[in-house]
Amino acid sequence: MSTIKLSPRQQEIIKLVKENPPITSEKLASKLNVTRAALRPDLAILTMTGILEARPKVGYIYSQKPSNSILYEYIRKMKVKDIMTKPVVTGEETKVYDAIVYLFLNDVGTLFIENNGCLVGAVSRKDFLKIAIGGTDMHQVPVGVIMTRMPNIIYVDTEDLAYVAAKKIIEHEVDSLPVVEKFKEGNKELYKIVGKVSKTNITKLFVKLGD
Amino acid sequence: MSTIKLSPRQQEIIKLVKENPPITSEKLASKLNVTRAALRPDLAILTMTGILEARPKVGYIYSQKPSNSILYEYIRKMKVKDIMTKPVVTGEETKVYDAIVYLFLNDVGTLFIENNGCLVGAVSRKDFLKIAIGGTDMHQVPVGVIMTRMPNIIYVDTEDLAYVAAKKIIEHEVDSLPVVEKFKEGNKELYKIVGKVSKTNITKLFVKLGD
Repeated sequence: MSTIKLSPRQQEIIKLVKENPPITSEKLASKLNVTRAALRPDLAILTMTGILEARPKVGYIYSQKPSNSILYEYIRKMKVKDIMTKPVVTGEETKVYDAIVYLFLNDVGTLFIENNGCLVGAVSRKDFLKIAIGGTDMHQVPVGVIMTRMPNIIYVDTEDLAYVAAKKIIEHEVDSLPVVEKFKEGNKELYKIVGKVSKTNITKLFVKLGD
Repeated sequence: MSTIKLSPRQQEIIKLVKENPPITSEKLASKLNVTRAALRPDLAILTMTGILEARPKVGYIYSQKPSNSILYEYIRKMKVKDIMTKPVVTGEETKVYDAIVYLFLNDVGTLFIENNGCLVGAVSRKDFLKIAIGGTDMHQVPVGVIMTRMPNIIYVDTEDLAYVAAKKIIEHEVDSLPVVEKFKEGNKELYKIVGKVSKTNITKLFVKLGD
């Protein structure tokens, strides 16, 4: 796939426009020590791609409107922290039945389980359904018994790309990933849960694309 | 959002290049009855965006490599039929317990319910979980009793945009949409289920974007 690569001169033009908006092509040419004619292709590219906006009789300004390629790059560079939502969390001792009710109250597909502020497990709608048809007494058994336990939980970092999160969701066949911050306690590596990324978050991002 | 709009002259250039590859800028200029200098911005745009390729000493050819904006358009134009997968279907008389087992066996999140080859309902993991904690005898009750029934099911057509499907999924807060073909039987409008589009399909498409 080819991408639109800006030349050093085009980057220089963007910088000058950002610093002195609005700026005429004459001023740009004199600052760059070239003729206006020599600048014309660069300015045409920068306006066609939507990076700069040409205001008649005023000059060039840096555009807020993203062009397709910029929008594309924007989505490619979108990070987990940009799309993550609030995780719904409960403790290991919560009974399965109560956990399911909590799941419905919060209208989510996965509950994350914390212990002393650290992520220790996750339970999905699928896990709950499996237990529900298995004859287990849901009022007696705590979620800690049925949850997927660390270190078997796939997670992402706030700085990971949204695309990486989507890939993990597909590869590991899960609906939702916890977003964690790692910290050390002695020699132990622990995970604080700060968000979640689900197929819903990715689908919403895809809708943005089309809008 | 601004898009890269090609000018009539740029479109004319693409046409000429397609008809006479490779073609030099001199020949293009003479065919268009303009100077080479006047063509320079247009040719710069068309090569920068990846639409044309400039072969030194040979001339311009129409590029097979999609640029970002073309890839973007491709994704924007992706249709339901391009991303849909096989729906998992059962009959109204299937008992809830057996339907849940069937859901697990097929590893899907939604069962679609058919009657005489027509879509009549849908049941999601969420619906099943609600029933499972409600004390209903899952071995006795058929899915027909608990399913969401037509015409209350949101559906899409094979020719709809993937983006439209994603939007419906988000707006109606469902995990999966049936893809249907409409047909008439007398005055009745009926729906044949031919596929499904889920958040998983959309997430997979998003992963493609980043690859």
